[in-house]
Amino acid sequence: MTEYTPPISVSSLTPRLLLGPGPSPVSPSVLEALAHPTLGHLDPQFLALMDDVNRRLREVFGTQNPLTFAVSGTGSAGMQAALTNLLEPGDTAIIGVHGFFGLRMADMARRVGAEVVSVEAEWGGVLDSGQLIDAHRSHPHARVLAVVHAETSTGAHQPLDEVGAHLRESDTLFVVDAVTSLGGVPVDVDRIGVDVCYSGTQKCLGAPPGLAPITFSPDAVQRVSSRVTPCSSWYLDVTLLSEYMGTQRRYHHTASSNLFYGLHEALREMESEGLQARHDRHRQVGVLLQNALASRGFTSFTEPSRRLPQLTAVRLPGGQDEAPLRALLLERHGIEVGGGLGPAKGKVWRIGLMGHGAREASVERLLDAVDDLGIGE
Amino acid sequence: MTEYTPPISVSSLTPRLLLGPGPSPVSPSVLEALAHPTLGHLDPQFLALMDDVNRRLREVFGTQNPLTFAVSGTGSAGMQAALTNLLEPGDTAIIGVHGFFGLRMADMARRVGAEVVSVEAEWGGVLDSGQLIDAHRSHPHARVLAVVHAETSTGAHQPLDEVGAHLRESDTLFVVDAVTSLGGVPVDVDRIGVDVCYSGTQKCLGAPPGLAPITFSPDAVQRVSSRVTPCSSWYLDVTLLSEYMGTQRRYHHTASSNLFYGLHEALREMESEGLQARHDRHRQVGVLLQNALASRGFTSFTEPSRRLPQLTAVRLPGGQDEAPLRALLLERHGIEVGGGLGPAKGKVWRIGLMGHGAREASVERLLDAVDDLGIGE
Repeated sequence: MTEYTPPISVSSLTPRLLLGPGPSPVSPSVLEALAHPTLGHLDPQFLALMDDVNRRLREVFGTQNPLTFAVSGTGSAGMQAALTNLLEPGDTAIIGVHGFFGLRMADMARRVGAEVVSVEAEWGGVLDSGQLIDAHRSHPHARVLAVVHAETSTGAHQPLDEVGAHLRESDTLFVVDAVTSLGGVPVDVDRIGVDVCYSGTQKCLGAPPGLAPITFSPDAVQRVSSRVTPCSSWYLDVTLLSEYMGTQRRYHHTASSNLFYGLHEALREMESEGLQARHDRHRQVGVLLQNALASRGFTSFTEPSRRLPQLTAVRLPGGQDEAPLRALLLERHGIEVGGGLGPAKGKVWRIGLMGHGAREASVERLLDAVDDLGIGE
Repeated sequence: MTEYTPPISVSSLTPRLLLGPGPSPVSPSVLEALAHPTLGHLDPQFLALMDDVNRRLREVFGTQNPLTFAVSGTGSAGMQAALTNLLEPGDTAIIGVHGFFGLRMADMARRVGAEVVSVEAEWGGVLDSGQLIDAHRSHPHARVLAVVHAETSTGAHQPLDEVGAHLRESDTLFVVDAVTSLGGVPVDVDRIGVDVCYSGTQKCLGAPPGLAPITFSPDAVQRVSSRVTPCSSWYLDVTLLSEYMGTQRRYHHTASSNLFYGLHEALREMESEGLQARHDRHRQVGVLLQNALASRGFTSFTEPSRRLPQLTAVRLPGGQDEAPLRALLLERHGIEVGGGLGPAKGKVWRIGLMGHGAREASVERLLDAVDDLGIGE
């Protein structure tokens, strides 16, 4: 790899085609929005913009939840906000683990003192809804049942409907990680019965990283307000955050107007395109890539019937070592793809076609590079 | 106030002159840097840029601490990272409280289970170093002693040297909130003997909000690595963060390249100007404003010998109600200043002259507006 040594300047950085597991390419109009002059976090203009962001987030989440906003941190801060607010020491949390991000949820839940009941599935597959429901029947007083909708580490698309329907009858809150799904495949929070759902801006939403959209159902808000112990994180305390986001406009932290500009513009682009059209685009482009890679001898790491269109995890033809080829792809062709995590380390490429990057031109550029490097069969 | 109703777009937002307690005005070149195409958080170009940011942060903090970086959150996330990593349940924390942000530190410390020993001073004054040292003598096993260097709620400039010298002989870690001081007045972490110091990017550093520079001394790193309980926050766990920032480059979260672009450019501007020249500029412009306001009948909320140049807290002449006049200043003149917090609520304006905004032209525009609105005597 080329070594980059300081002093460097931002303008000297070479742009890349971002086809990894995120961040995804950001459109010129979203980048331009970022550079609009900074506003104060209590400026009435900014508060109106934030309200409009929240309204647009409700649409993409498919929810009427009043408490829907963007946490000032990356997608993992959304995960942290969900679990830290809902769980208290001694609570039981049922966590589905079928990849790296399920493990992360379990880690976070344990750190706040919860007892974690893991329901596991092989990496690349999905969690069995019956097993999740059985785990809930064995632990009916669990505070939360949490799963990852789009496992960024494996490319698997977790079904949610059965578990959502089952949990409607219970006091257990349904938590869904939609970091890689929101904006790429339908999420439908209210229809499914999800209580807390969070995402990141830098995947299928098409904005830069730095904010974590999140939504809390009225039941989840009720749970938070009936906590016995204070939330261990002041920064992510959703009660304090709701006083800033809500009508009180009570100062909490200095929200980054520039990041909100980018998210607002990305959500406007999404509205122009239409959510259904956006999902269709992700699906069509993803299938195009997956077929083209198969014809070149790449094999799916993900269970074939469970593949996400926006994140394709594949083994390289002939068991080639992925890391040096991934480095060449970046250096010679300016294309970023991701390597594997956990048991997939060293074995797979994770190729994202998300947001502004989910287009045929991305697929063509990647395939040309793969052919140029002689990777395919 | 004008009501802004959706639909709005970013390009329709009216820029303001940001003379509140932060965010401060961002220079055109920093705004332009923000809009550079997004890079991946593991791209070697981005990692080199981040290393360069860390090197520049060491200079402005006045430290050789290897573990110096920017947390992916606002200044309050820096405070949260400091206290959440250093404190465990049952630990004692001595916290200086002479304003809103000292109260926030105490709140955060209690939430992670620490016993808080408050040392208090009147809002507008500073903490007595002798009292802080006495509190430490009474609680020699305290894990941390924490103070706010520049109390953003009162404009007071807390002396640090005596407490720093005293704590060098002890195992108690010295934590300093430099959110509003870093880049505006000298901080000198190593000379004073500060163990953990954090700031925000949106004050005297001149970048947009969204990142929190922080530095940990080797003693602080040792303390973190000898914790008995895991850090309650996965997102802010400095051990995990150091594995990403350090030579391992282990994936943790998706750092926002665009925010780092802005911070890098702001730190480059600071280097061109020189740190001493930058401090001088803040001092000169601050004194200019403070004298001009005094001549118009504004009186200092802050103890006169302890005023920060970059944040001026003043009562309005003749006991005028501040809020409606502050709204007029924003609406008619496009200038943002801050109101009071806590006991200063409704009574004071907090006027920031920070970073790119610390210039005579800002003072002139503010005074013209004050005169136009007939606020001064």
